[in-house]
Amino acid sequence: MKEVKVVLYGIGAIGRRMASALLEKKWAKIVGAVDIDPNKVGRDLGDLIGKKPLGVIISDDPDAVLSEAKPHIVVHTTTSYLRDTYPQFVKILGHGVNVVSTCEELSYPYVTEEQRELAEKLDKLAREKGVTILGTGINPGFLMDTLVITLTGPCIRVDRIEVVRQMNAATRRVPFQRKIGAGLTVEEFKRKISSHEITGHVGLEQSIGMIADALGWRLDEVRVEPVEPVIAERPVESEAVKVPAGYCAGLRQRAMGVRGGEAVITLDFRAYIGAEEEYDAITIEGVPTIRERISPCVHGDYGTVGITINSIPKVIKAEPGLKTMKDLPIPSATPSRA
Amino acid sequence: MKEVKVVLYGIGAIGRRMASALLEKKWAKIVGAVDIDPNKVGRDLGDLIGKKPLGVIISDDPDAVLSEAKPHIVVHTTTSYLRDTYPQFVKILGHGVNVVSTCEELSYPYVTEEQRELAEKLDKLAREKGVTILGTGINPGFLMDTLVITLTGPCIRVDRIEVVRQMNAATRRVPFQRKIGAGLTVEEFKRKISSHEITGHVGLEQSIGMIADALGWRLDEVRVEPVEPVIAERPVESEAVKVPAGYCAGLRQRAMGVRGGEAVITLDFRAYIGAEEEYDAITIEGVPTIRERISPCVHGDYGTVGITINSIPKVIKAEPGLKTMKDLPIPSATPSRA
Repeated sequence: MKEVKVVLYGIGAIGRRMASALLEKKWAKIVGAVDIDPNKVGRDLGDLIGKKPLGVIISDDPDAVLSEAKPHIVVHTTTSYLRDTYPQFVKILGHGVNVVSTCEELSYPYVTEEQRELAEKLDKLAREKGVTILGTGINPGFLMDTLVITLTGPCIRVDRIEVVRQMNAATRRVPFQRKIGAGLTVEEFKRKISSHEITGHVGLEQSIGMIADALGWRLDEVRVEPVEPVIAERPVESEAVKVPAGYCAGLRQRAMGVRGGEAVITLDFRAYIGAEEEYDAITIEGVPTIRERISPCVHGDYGTVGITINSIPKVIKAEPGLKTMKDLPIPSATPSRA
Repeated sequence: MKEVKVVLYGIGAIGRRMASALLEKKWAKIVGAVDIDPNKVGRDLGDLIGKKPLGVIISDDPDAVLSEAKPHIVVHTTTSYLRDTYPQFVKILGHGVNVVSTCEELSYPYVTEEQRELAEKLDKLAREKGVTILGTGINPGFLMDTLVITLTGPCIRVDRIEVVRQMNAATRRVPFQRKIGAGLTVEEFKRKISSHEITGHVGLEQSIGMIADALGWRLDEVRVEPVEPVIAERPVESEAVKVPAGYCAGLRQRAMGVRGGEAVITLDFRAYIGAEEEYDAITIEGVPTIRERISPCVHGDYGTVGITINSIPKVIKAEPGLKTMKDLPIPSATPSRA
């Protein structure tokens, strides 16, 4: 495999994990790093991730980094919403550089008219520049869409699909535990939902859209239910958060793809401290019915880093344009250093 | 989806199931059928599968069928071995027609030098004719290779892979039960192994080869262990076969991909009457470790028909040449009639 020059755009918790993982890949070389955080700008990326200096200085000027480093691809990890990431993508593609991003809405950017318009512009620009842009991640990007679609492959007929991801938030980063409202009263939880401080999981609509598209299903409606608190029945805790009984341990969120009045695709996402079982379960009802389960559930951070990095060679090799995971060859791990 | 004209080549048990399943797909039209069995030649395909006549008369002359029917693709289900199917593929590709085949050795035809040479010739011919040829099926083709590779997608590192397929042969066709030696004495089983009347599962080497290739692993050796009888500890039976205690209930077969003296890929195939649990289990040891299980196991016949038919649009759309499942977009079910 030829050496791939990578620029990291976004050096948050996930961006730093991307950096560490890329250092273990002999086929990859980190040649630049972009972040706007003044506490990071000017620092060596290696220092920041607790390794030896890499000679890669974090910059807040993506144009300068892209012009000088001339990467094959940007690994982009800034925010979830296409409205915010769109100008960043335009800039990167404008330099004739491929993109793989964890932006949730990019994983299947055809859910709203606004997203579709932005996606079409990105697709056009990428084609003009002869490069490819992909949104991926563990979820959306793999567990509730790519893997689901793959498991319909042996089915002569598919009637209904149900997917559950249940994780014990105690095993995850503390900011994630806060983000799902663990430790709040139910009142506080509801207030933070209203004020959009708690947004829930971003991606259910994208995953439903991708599944329906892959199966050639026309849905009448994608219904996203309100985020619900999961209330602790007994006291539970993580290393960082104590949840008394009656308080919020985390959240649950469901979305359905509806056709002819029936929920033909149901996605059910549950993340809370004290979940007794952790799993990713997929049921394809049809001929044959396929009941699949990954247990424990795939760790979100590792999984996101893995699928993103492993997509790099496929993005570089793909035809130009905006792609989704259903357009690319089957996912596969890439070789690590011996 | 545009109508796809299909010729069935091979009208055995699987070919007949392909025909029935294709009739449920509004995007497919069966325009021809080829078989050498004198009891089938001249009969209407619809009659043969217990449906109303289709106006498709089974012929033993593939050239005539392909010239007249001008299909987009041939669904090929004759035998497991590339040496035997090679001239059939040459004929079909020569007519400028795409091929999807359940020939086990075609699923990854790079295991022996002889197969590789035949595969290279098929690839060249397909490119010349601007068409695509793919070998697939439930196993090899999906459960022990495509799905395994897909599940490595979220892994930052993969150390070892273990796959088990365990099925209760009582749920399968009677010829399959006979093929695995159910009801024989251990002596008879061994004699039939020696005489190649029992061959075991064809495909473990192909699946290991495809996994290693997808992961960029160079194996020192692929070791296929001798087929072992599974001996009934207590009397077991299917509707068709009674197995006294001490007799063979079926077989077990293992194969390993070895690197540096260590089995880094292990495939374990077990098919016997009375298996208490039926499952397809995949363990990817690495970062993160992923433990996946489909339970009950995917029914082999349905799954083979599903994955083969669902591959048709992908084969037609693919670039010309000989492809394997790891080269194509992720599998997905195709729409059925409403």
